Amino acid sequence: MELSKSRPSIVFIGAGNVATHLSKAFHDSGCRIKMIYSKTQESARALAEVIGCPYTTDITSIDNDADIYIVSLKDSVLNSILSELVKCNTKALYVHTAGSVSIDIWKGLTDRYGVMYPMQTFSKQRKVDFNNVHFFVEANSKEDTDLLIRTASLISNHVFEASSEQRKYLHISAVFACNFTNHMYAICEHLLSSHGLPFSAMLPLIDETAEKVHHLSPVSAQTGPAQRNDKNIMESHMEMLKNEPETVELYKLISESIHKYQTKQ
Amino acid sequence: MELSKSRPSIVFIGAGNVATHLSKAFHDSGCRIKMIYSKTQESARALAEVIGCPYTTDITSIDNDADIYIVSLKDSVLNSILSELVKCNTKALYVHTAGSVSIDIWKGLTDRYGVMYPMQTFSKQRKVDFNNVHFFVEANSKEDTDLLIRTASLISNHVFEASSEQRKYLHISAVFACNFTNHMYAICEHLLSSHGLPFSAMLPLIDETAEKVHHLSPVSAQTGPAQRNDKNIMESHMEMLKNEPETVELYKLISESIHKYQTKQ
Repeated sequence: MELSKSRPSIVFIGAGNVATHLSKAFHDSGCRIKMIYSKTQESARALAEVIGCPYTTDITSIDNDADIYIVSLKDSVLNSILSELVKCNTKALYVHTAGSVSIDIWKGLTDRYGVMYPMQTFSKQRKVDFNNVHFFVEANSKEDTDLLIRTASLISNHVFEASSEQRKYLHISAVFACNFTNHMYAICEHLLSSHGLPFSAMLPLIDETAEKVHHLSPVSAQTGPAQRNDKNIMESHMEMLKNEPETVELYKLISESIHKYQTKQ
Repeated sequence: MELSKSRPSIVFIGAGNVATHLSKAFHDSGCRIKMIYSKTQESARALAEVIGCPYTTDITSIDNDADIYIVSLKDSVLNSILSELVKCNTKALYVHTAGSVSIDIWKGLTDRYGVMYPMQTFSKQRKVDFNNVHFFVEANSKEDTDLLIRTASLISNHVFEASSEQRKYLHISAVFACNFTNHMYAICEHLLSSHGLPFSAMLPLIDETAEKVHHLSPVSAQTGPAQRNDKNIMESHMEMLKNEPETVELYKLISESIHKYQTKQ
């Protein structure tokens, strides 16, 4: 066990967006990344080359001497791999990184387990500044909670404990604040490009919309036709979208929801 | 007429968020704000006091010697006031600031007219940096288009000509990029606060989501359960929201739309 050293050694299970960014960040912080495992040889090799560590596609050949095994796999395949995975090293700490998956997924499989959830949107093409990423950690013992806090703090200044129940709500909230927000940008780009207008014209507005909620609550920051209940404009917008019935439906539902939030105050 | 001078004199019709921010910015840029008109005495007086100019609530007493009359009223009341308003000064240039209202609203009422649309989200409580605001202008003559470009350029570095048709699409796109995005933040805050979690934890994610689309297209920046088509997680999220059927419906529709945009690529 290398727990007495300040930087734990880590094996990454997965080579997708989250594993890629996390393993690089821990590597840069001085942790030893002992191995990358992925079912997909190409992904495993590509990431292992960047880190400069071995890789495997065979779950029975995973390094058996790391302090922490960090599992970043698609949530839907997590369940099927864990019972086999924990055989690698029965003394190590195992964590997954999924916002919506309970710590209990590990229960009965191994002695030391937990969760390390970095609440951020990871794309391979884009470098992440982990200093600003909020980490929410949880483990089945005080010692391992402390170990996860110390470990995540090697790369982030914002590390918090959160229960699985709290994490579920953080994750669904993040879906609205990030994925759904980004989809509003996507619809915006689609509407502009279908009329020969550049998406870049929208960036100052997008930036100010994000910046505003640093200073005002979202409900009090709201503006626009739905906030003013300006029915003429909303009708004419839905008329403009009539060739895309799903977008009309979205426009209508979101506008009604905005109006409801405004009148709740 | 003072058009030969570099800074036109302006009367503001309206004292809401847009009129407040625009009149202050033009005042600070050295334009003479000759008067504020609003039906609401309190709003007219409050804004006039900040600017240091007269105000009126009587449409027949509006200053009759300004170069430009800028009308920032709720879109739904615009129509009812314009025919009376243009009697103030039959030689001046009249513009409205509404993204979705055609320049033709002025047709037949007066000789010189146009639109000056600042594409931004204005809240009274928050100062606006006009340098970064995109302005879209249009007038019924080349001379007045030039005058509007020169005038808007006194406060912004991003002034463009746009037809009423283009402006309609800019405005509906801005509703998605700003108002609907902000509503995603509002739902996020609601979900967090109902579970004792602080909205501030979400700000780094909100910032990165906005910053990402400076570098990647929104469709390729997308992440999350809908992008991965992770049905388990989406089902469990909708189960968490079941006490709010409208939010479940929004979650479902937006997730379906994300999936559709991903598979269109």
